[in-house]
Amino acid sequence: MNTMTVSDKNKLTEFAKKIFGSENVLSSYDELYTYSADSTNIVNSDEMADVVVFAQNSKQVSDLLKFANENEIPVTPRTAGTSVCGAALPKKGGIVINFSKMNKILEINKQNLICKVEPGVVIEDLQNAVDNLNLFYPPDPSNLKVSMIGGSIALCSGGPHTFKYGSTKDYIIGLEVVLADGTIIHTGSDCSKDVTGYNTTQLFVGSEGTLGIITQATIRLIPKPEAKRVLLAYFDTLEDASKTVNDIISNLITPSVIDMIDKNTLKTIENFYPCGMLPDKEAALLIEIDGFKSNLDEQYSKITDICRLNNSSYIQTADNKEEEEKIWIARRSSFGATAKLAPNVLTEDVVVPRENIVPLVKGIWQICDKYNLKTCIMGHIGDGNIHPNIALDLRNPLERDNFDKAKTELFELALSLNGRLSGEHGIGCEKAPYISQALEPNNLILMKQIKNLLDPKGILNPEKIFI
Amino acid sequence: MNTMTVSDKNKLTEFAKKIFGSENVLSSYDELYTYSADSTNIVNSDEMADVVVFAQNSKQVSDLLKFANENEIPVTPRTAGTSVCGAALPKKGGIVINFSKMNKILEINKQNLICKVEPGVVIEDLQNAVDNLNLFYPPDPSNLKVSMIGGSIALCSGGPHTFKYGSTKDYIIGLEVVLADGTIIHTGSDCSKDVTGYNTTQLFVGSEGTLGIITQATIRLIPKPEAKRVLLAYFDTLEDASKTVNDIISNLITPSVIDMIDKNTLKTIENFYPCGMLPDKEAALLIEIDGFKSNLDEQYSKITDICRLNNSSYIQTADNKEEEEKIWIARRSSFGATAKLAPNVLTEDVVVPRENIVPLVKGIWQICDKYNLKTCIMGHIGDGNIHPNIALDLRNPLERDNFDKAKTELFELALSLNGRLSGEHGIGCEKAPYISQALEPNNLILMKQIKNLLDPKGILNPEKIFI
Repeated sequence: MNTMTVSDKNKLTEFAKKIFGSENVLSSYDELYTYSADSTNIVNSDEMADVVVFAQNSKQVSDLLKFANENEIPVTPRTAGTSVCGAALPKKGGIVINFSKMNKILEINKQNLICKVEPGVVIEDLQNAVDNLNLFYPPDPSNLKVSMIGGSIALCSGGPHTFKYGSTKDYIIGLEVVLADGTIIHTGSDCSKDVTGYNTTQLFVGSEGTLGIITQATIRLIPKPEAKRVLLAYFDTLEDASKTVNDIISNLITPSVIDMIDKNTLKTIENFYPCGMLPDKEAALLIEIDGFKSNLDEQYSKITDICRLNNSSYIQTADNKEEEEKIWIARRSSFGATAKLAPNVLTEDVVVPRENIVPLVKGIWQICDKYNLKTCIMGHIGDGNIHPNIALDLRNPLERDNFDKAKTELFELALSLNGRLSGEHGIGCEKAPYISQALEPNNLILMKQIKNLLDPKGILNPEKIFI
Repeated sequence: MNTMTVSDKNKLTEFAKKIFGSENVLSSYDELYTYSADSTNIVNSDEMADVVVFAQNSKQVSDLLKFANENEIPVTPRTAGTSVCGAALPKKGGIVINFSKMNKILEINKQNLICKVEPGVVIEDLQNAVDNLNLFYPPDPSNLKVSMIGGSIALCSGGPHTFKYGSTKDYIIGLEVVLADGTIIHTGSDCSKDVTGYNTTQLFVGSEGTLGIITQATIRLIPKPEAKRVLLAYFDTLEDASKTVNDIISNLITPSVIDMIDKNTLKTIENFYPCGMLPDKEAALLIEIDGFKSNLDEQYSKITDICRLNNSSYIQTADNKEEEEKIWIARRSSFGATAKLAPNVLTEDVVVPRENIVPLVKGIWQICDKYNLKTCIMGHIGDGNIHPNIALDLRNPLERDNFDKAKTELFELALSLNGRLSGEHGIGCEKAPYISQALEPNNLILMKQIKNLLDPKGILNPEKIFI
């Protein structure tokens, strides 16, 4: 709830205009309303920013934070606002700092295998820029066409390629961060292997803007794989699909992607975007391998053999770009297809050790049946990371209430299976109420002590991660 | 300097015996003298522990730390004592906790690709245990036959395989840590992809026991590469060797090892362990590739082509185990050979962005010539990480003095080349005096605040990282 007086708000707006220039400050109701939402499907007009500023350099951010800290004004950093856990929501009003104008790739150094970027660089733009130099930045959250690197670092996002290549944290080797009191610090270095002091870089990666605001990042790159191949294998039982994943890994193959599409997703995609999916199967695995061209065929045929040995009833292979694209379109249509089922789709994100994938997915089916919710499940099964996409009408109080109950049971289920609340979307304000169930009390105390050390007045992205 | 009174010391020893049992407590002069050294070649009898205990479980460590914290007694954790930066030296006396009896591999879970270990597990034992299950734990510090995982995590050690596989930090996904006041905390989880809360795990990895004492670790494993091949390529100039590394990477090849052996090392090895090395070359590259058997020949021949294009005057290939072993023995003999040059060998460790490898290595040659020090340089050139092994007689004050001067200049050189003080050995007490030159003041202030938060009385591994 925002409690700023009109006079304080005016003073803040004037200050912001002085630092950022009038053209970079928004303060009308309509503008502020727009920035009271991210991709979480929640808009609460009681929780609107008082001012939105577009930052152009870290000095401005430092000046603003100094002012905000002195005056105890909440600050919420924002890049593309694609968070689905409410990480970019200005829960206590105050200032939203928008980084979309700090969008430069400052340097790509092919010899050092690093690049330096501002927070507003769109992830796909970064990937394309390094791809042109035969380099590779693997993290690929599904919204990478719009989502930006600053938010992606703050949330430590993942994507299908995490199984082989790791997530965002594994590529961030240095940061420029503005602390709550305006201090600008530089962590890490340009050396990918560096043990000079504490790993303060990883303190900020995934901290969701609650410990400091990222204004620049140094990113490690790797050589680009020469080629890739993809297939889609259907299974009559989830158990067979899960065993296939284990057998692939036991055969020393590390696919670049092992995603799972459940029965509901298959049906929904085929209903709305007919593309030859088999809607009567319980699960399908999308498996991509990459590496040297000359070696892919052997791995590919090993994988199809393993799928068949595990009773895969149909394997959709791809021998050219067009066939590959067909498989990927089917996979990527899942969210859009789910959105045809009801006005809203809420995407959840839980993770368990891979041995517990089957009880997790079956449990989610049960919970959603119980609460009469239409759910399509997608997941990065190689990582034990599952996304139920739940279609509902948020204007319907009963559906909303059922969703809340289902969500609580979903988290309880994941935790009971030795899992965690989030594999790659973050905690934000949506999961903050559950964090004390997920973490050991002593670890949570340490987290709160660190928060208190770095942001004693609690101005940075309030009500995120814990409340 | 140790300032404990005899009566306090007796009280401490009695307390330790109660917790650990008399058989696990050492307190005689000879015993304490032994534990006043690690592999850093420094023994200072003014800096001896008052008691050495062998821990068997984390509860004991917790009880001891509670006592130590209340009584402000310094605590230095120790596994194998193979640190070469003085990380295991009891600089202010007090307690050394030896973890060599907590040496169990508690679990290897093939399906979840994780294992759980106590700190005293020898790294090679861990590697062999997972290798038997076709799994792979890549970090391979050169002393892995004796060094233990606890110290390796605390120092975030690396090894030849870091270029492709990353260092220790990239494999640690959860820790049990005893904090200064005896609190036991559990960070991370059994899920390799987990963004539930701050990354407190990485706060402790590489913190050299100054923030908490690691009593258990959850480690991520990966499928084992099917096969590997190795070669040794000689070059008349360092520039050609360095360009070869860049060209290999530009050709999308990620070798599992790219190590560099300099002219002095080649000469020294061939002098003392004749094995067919070419002592008149400026540098040699040891390159290992791994992956699927069927693909290695193609990469191997690409690499030999690239070496030749960069004027490699001789390439020692290996077509069988025996020939491979010959190459590795040559590489591994470097330290032993250097040790023939003088009674002591001090191993240094600096890192620069790869583009600055040539000026770094040439600069080290110059510095060592200037101070008349015999130096053999080895390095993980793919990572920009260079180890000068300096042979000298520590009993000779002039040599010792020259070494100290050379060391200071070495660090200044690395920092002037945008590098850092350590790529994989850590800071310990040896490099602590230089840390404020290496890190930005604001980052250093943050580190000290974190230290103060977690260890307000400064009992944990004092005088390490910073003083």
